[in-house]
Amino acid sequence: MPIEIPEVVIERLPVYLRVLNRLQRDGHSVISSQDLGEELGVTPAQIRKDLSYFGRFGKQGRGYSVQRLIDELRQILGLERRWRMALVGAGQLGRAIASYHGFGPQGFDLVAVFDASPALVGATVAGQTVESVEQLDTRLRESPVEIGIVAVPAEHAQEVIDRLVRAGVRAILNYAPRAVQVPTHVHVRQIDPAAALQSMTYYLKNEDKERAADSTPAPHTLTARP
Amino acid sequence: MPIEIPEVVIERLPVYLRVLNRLQRDGHSVISSQDLGEELGVTPAQIRKDLSYFGRFGKQGRGYSVQRLIDELRQILGLERRWRMALVGAGQLGRAIASYHGFGPQGFDLVAVFDASPALVGATVAGQTVESVEQLDTRLRESPVEIGIVAVPAEHAQEVIDRLVRAGVRAILNYAPRAVQVPTHVHVRQIDPAAALQSMTYYLKNEDKERAADSTPAPHTLTARP
Repeated sequence: MPIEIPEVVIERLPVYLRVLNRLQRDGHSVISSQDLGEELGVTPAQIRKDLSYFGRFGKQGRGYSVQRLIDELRQILGLERRWRMALVGAGQLGRAIASYHGFGPQGFDLVAVFDASPALVGATVAGQTVESVEQLDTRLRESPVEIGIVAVPAEHAQEVIDRLVRAGVRAILNYAPRAVQVPTHVHVRQIDPAAALQSMTYYLKNEDKERAADSTPAPHTLTARP
Repeated sequence: MPIEIPEVVIERLPVYLRVLNRLQRDGHSVISSQDLGEELGVTPAQIRKDLSYFGRFGKQGRGYSVQRLIDELRQILGLERRWRMALVGAGQLGRAIASYHGFGPQGFDLVAVFDASPALVGATVAGQTVESVEQLDTRLRESPVEIGIVAVPAEHAQEVIDRLVRAGVRAILNYAPRAVQVPTHVHVRQIDPAAALQSMTYYLKNEDKERAADSTPAPHTLTARP
């Protein structure tokens, strides 16, 4: 298994998988990189390049078998098994996350929910009884999980993540708006809507500028640019 | 303004900005790329390289002025102005998004909320009265927004996005678990927790494999590897 695959490629594979699952539900059994590219909004060349890292998909000119590509991607991404998750934070955001219907079908089971607030401990969230975050270490030692989801206020994110890491969690999905530090063996993905917006306003701003520049008439001509 | 900056660099800038804002609140006025790298979990070389695209930060050996870096990043990202957002989808996820406290301080104002369900129209969400999605076109023509947030079921995402684009929206934050298509002048960021998890299980799976391989004793030795 090659291990120098760029992270950005790994991050695209789940999106490929999602689109392929939908194509299969819609009755497609073969798809060209051209059509797959259109579905995904990337170039066919990008798709061929991404998949070439795994060196098993090339059938020049014949398109991909949707089922085979799904099977291979699931295997590459480690989805032939199920993964156990604990959620920390059972406030409004945590409850919205817990009720997200996309986890189960993708192979992820929420098996524990923790919160620091005594008002929330004992409540039921997505079929789980909310436990005190003070019980986290004991609970996860008895019944380990691979993945932690963090939906606590920013100022508590690092301590909660430290605690999850001590309890053996190796992958963190962090909804707290804070860059956090973890040991090298632990993986983190940040869900950060404000940062996502800010990475778009960069483009909006520059396009506005270009438009303003374009609408300045050039000397000696009244012809508008297209 | 250089326009060939890799998108991945643009996507990191908001994270830099977030950490710098926190450092400033904590009383720091100067930071080295070394220390900033530690806060961010990236190498100092990466930070210097990312910032070098904008060609104005280099003070070899003296560290960065936190205030100046904040000001420059805000200007680069188009955050010296405020941006208007419409949310489509006022269910549990939509309400959690609307109540997110991170938008306002970052320069984003939610000014309209739409839903298709008559049961939700008229309700108040984050200070906005929920309007029927049928009113979206008229409403946004009268009072335009730059950004649309989509929190509807997957099967409605594309039609809602088409509608937002027709109403002049140029940036979409899509929470629906579906790859969507937009004209080239429209930007999309996908918030997709299942995909984020799947891009981590790739690593968990391969690390498990390596660990299993490491624990197979080599012939003629009983020494455990570290």
